Amino acid sequence: MTIKILFSAADRHHQEWIPVLNQTFTEFDLDFDLITYADNPTEIDYLLHSPDGPVNDFTPFANLSAIMTLWAGVEDIINNKTIACPLVRMNDPGMVEGMREWVTGQVLRHHLGMDIHINNRSGAWLKETSPPLARSRVVGFLGLGVLGLACLKAVKVLNFQVMGWSRTKREIPDVQTFHGKDGLHHVLGASDIIAMILPLTRETTDLINRDTLKFIKRGTVLINSGRGGLINEEDLLQALDNGQVSHATLDVFKTEPLPVNHPFWLHDKVSIWPHISSESRPQTASISIARNITRNLKGEAMKNVVDFERGY
Amino acid sequence: MTIKILFSAADRHHQEWIPVLNQTFTEFDLDFDLITYADNPTEIDYLLHSPDGPVNDFTPFANLSAIMTLWAGVEDIINNKTIACPLVRMNDPGMVEGMREWVTGQVLRHHLGMDIHINNRSGAWLKETSPPLARSRVVGFLGLGVLGLACLKAVKVLNFQVMGWSRTKREIPDVQTFHGKDGLHHVLGASDIIAMILPLTRETTDLINRDTLKFIKRGTVLINSGRGGLINEEDLLQALDNGQVSHATLDVFKTEPLPVNHPFWLHDKVSIWPHISSESRPQTASISIARNITRNLKGEAMKNVVDFERGY
Repeated sequence: MTIKILFSAADRHHQEWIPVLNQTFTEFDLDFDLITYADNPTEIDYLLHSPDGPVNDFTPFANLSAIMTLWAGVEDIINNKTIACPLVRMNDPGMVEGMREWVTGQVLRHHLGMDIHINNRSGAWLKETSPPLARSRVVGFLGLGVLGLACLKAVKVLNFQVMGWSRTKREIPDVQTFHGKDGLHHVLGASDIIAMILPLTRETTDLINRDTLKFIKRGTVLINSGRGGLINEEDLLQALDNGQVSHATLDVFKTEPLPVNHPFWLHDKVSIWPHISSESRPQTASISIARNITRNLKGEAMKNVVDFERGY
Repeated sequence: MTIKILFSAADRHHQEWIPVLNQTFTEFDLDFDLITYADNPTEIDYLLHSPDGPVNDFTPFANLSAIMTLWAGVEDIINNKTIACPLVRMNDPGMVEGMREWVTGQVLRHHLGMDIHINNRSGAWLKETSPPLARSRVVGFLGLGVLGLACLKAVKVLNFQVMGWSRTKREIPDVQTFHGKDGLHHVLGASDIIAMILPLTRETTDLINRDTLKFIKRGTVLINSGRGGLINEEDLLQALDNGQVSHATLDVFKTEPLPVNHPFWLHDKVSIWPHISSESRPQTASISIARNITRNLKGEAMKNVVDFERGY
């Protein structure tokens, strides 16, 4: 029987996604019908979802096997009370690669002190800026999911000392890991560079705030490519101004796009990325979707099903 | 018998090197006397050399077992006609690490298009700058010595497509390598980012010039952390102005420090590092020196002895 798949995302995503999804589903030998508008919502089996798309009330879609998100974060959909089927979050290998490249690049940028040279037009030969070796720097990772772990490993290969923190206990061979409140304080106090790659949940909202910032080693660099909501932005501004944090490289913000009048824009210790550290890549993401649909059709468990209690 | 070792480098290097050399030689159980001024040059067994030090006429040092350079490059000493003993160039694992970090950081900086965001204060949300994955970029390495190879491998681990060029044929497992003139043209034409980590010899002087620049893929980024003499600077300026090369990140120059009136300083497609991509690190470099002295005392062959014909 033909399965009906609804792609519900803003028009601007159609061109990049639809042909790739069609091709991948065909390669997976699915008997499918991929549509972008549902005349009859009760006929839809799988709903591929982006919060910017037309469907955010799932009530009419009474027979869904799953709602599958196009992006990794689920904070915009998890509290939707009209969901009556499994919610599957995107776990895209292409996005993991992109995130690994972005975070590793940012760690090296700060380790090497690149900015001063990129902008040096003065004719001054800044010989005294020679960086130490990576082996003498500690990089702390907040978040040890698929994304955080991939970043941690890439940075470790470059000889940095790494440590990881997660909300609940995780053991990783050859890596010092910490968890819970005390563990967080320890990692904040020991790291020269902190990379945040956490999902936004009740527990991680404002994780970096006035109280936790006190534990940060003076002069540490903060990199956030998780979610804007992880950081209390006013408290961060204060920590930048008093020197507790030496620089914040931010790809995500409480409000996106970051409003033009936000104090981050003109702050010389903040650099701003427009939420592009990594995105789902249709080529690889479509395979994740096709695999999960195939599993479900065979009666196997789908992967990356959201745990509503945990929040991701 | 006590061996006499002369450290001949500018005064500013003394504080960083002398205590570490003393400690390392002691740990190697050498019976030694480390001095910075030779009353009697004929008594000196090993001369640790930097071109900025007091000794550049080796004639009075009639009984040297070796001259050992503190830095990796030997272009300032190799044509010295007063050398009458083996010349040993520095091969410092710490320097290799530093170079690997610097080159990997620069490759990621250009891959991710960092500069535009580092300097974006406009309030513009530059969403369209999302980078492709590393797997779709080719990084070409000119130079496959200890330094070049370490950089190539680090970049390969991050999923970039890599290829290498060396003057004479080299085979490296799982890496496409090229050599000679045709090989150079091929690598220049296939690479999105080119990293130069070559020694300066007769053959590599002005390797990048008007003729070879024609083979470069339009819009390629050039990174030079080898030696300034590898590039004809006027020809590079022309290639930047006509768009053949999109950006040059340079750590080394024909004249260093780069003169304040050099056109590179104000060129918006050039970024300038003050020859700090990597330096010998006393902690690790002193071990290389101690090992070679120990080998020589035991009658074994020293490592990294310069081949005057080859030029390094």
